[in-house]
Amino acid sequence: MVNYPSGKKFEAETRLTSAGGRGMELEKEINSTNEFYLAQDIAVIHKKPTPVTIVKVDYPKRSAARITEAYFKLPSTTDYNGIYKGKYIDFEAKECASLTSFPLKSIHAHQITHLESVQRHGAIAFLIIRFTKYGETYFVEADKLVSYVRNNTRHSIPYEWFKNNGKLISANYVKPVDYLKIVDELYFGQ
Amino acid sequence: MVNYPSGKKFEAETRLTSAGGRGMELEKEINSTNEFYLAQDIAVIHKKPTPVTIVKVDYPKRSAARITEAYFKLPSTTDYNGIYKGKYIDFEAKECASLTSFPLKSIHAHQITHLESVQRHGAIAFLIIRFTKYGETYFVEADKLVSYVRNNTRHSIPYEWFKNNGKLISANYVKPVDYLKIVDELYFGQ
Repeated sequence: MVNYPSGKKFEAETRLTSAGGRGMELEKEINSTNEFYLAQDIAVIHKKPTPVTIVKVDYPKRSAARITEAYFKLPSTTDYNGIYKGKYIDFEAKECASLTSFPLKSIHAHQITHLESVQRHGAIAFLIIRFTKYGETYFVEADKLVSYVRNNTRHSIPYEWFKNNGKLISANYVKPVDYLKIVDELYFGQ
Repeated sequence: MVNYPSGKKFEAETRLTSAGGRGMELEKEINSTNEFYLAQDIAVIHKKPTPVTIVKVDYPKRSAARITEAYFKLPSTTDYNGIYKGKYIDFEAKECASLTSFPLKSIHAHQITHLESVQRHGAIAFLIIRFTKYGETYFVEADKLVSYVRNNTRHSIPYEWFKNNGKLISANYVKPVDYLKIVDELYFGQ
């Protein structure tokens, strides 16, 4: 019987850090990429903490406060933001297990509103969508996705749309999701 | 006997949403101000969720996932960020109960590093410090505070320093902490 070292622990972490554990692999890779950007002083971009509603906290003497009841809360903004070359950066990242389309229910209405609004104020706003079955990660400018959502009654966006409207994000060991390369191409003409 | 409506609930919320409940009044006022800025489409600036390390989650059938063990985590960035007039905005806010000085231990070393780093990338970075006993709320540019921290061995900054180096933030009913007025003066020459 094969014994995977710390396999159990990994599974627990995967399950716990995001509600339902969806999209954890992509999240980890973006976090690593952001750490690289930060360490190299290229950009300062962080994932926001998972929003939770805290209901009960124990304050034991001589030890750390312990939250004993809390619930996951719907995020009112996107997950990632920060600064790059003087510009405000804002994006959401999602994994998609479907072969044919990306379900729009995985992006909340107020996240769409948020992306529209930061863009109006001059942000570089986008989405990172990974089709896990194809191993492809797409960079999609927020205005393209927002305009699709505003002008369609469909509940999902076909995979083909991403091939036509998105840009494939390349990966390497230190930058598993090198999205700033696409930002350079699209917004800084590099 | 006077019965304050929902007084109890208010106390519970105050205690729960920030570790130890410090600085909650200022936080609420900044959140209200940010809601006003957002509603008026002036700026998109949000408080980041309180970072917690989630240890145990129950997934009961047919009801919401319930976090049963979690701990407050030291923040690795500042609490607030967003966009205003195309510029990336980043700040930390603290209440101070002392009459004589602001204790530096209430700002973590990595928050100082974070402020330095976003500033290097072109952010408008600052601190909002309220001396509760005086009812005064100061806007302090990050570089001034960072330079104080880097060039002093003191563990606190005298109240007088804020009078000389900070700018008093004005308040009104819809904008209890109207910090963008100072941003306009300092960074947009208005």
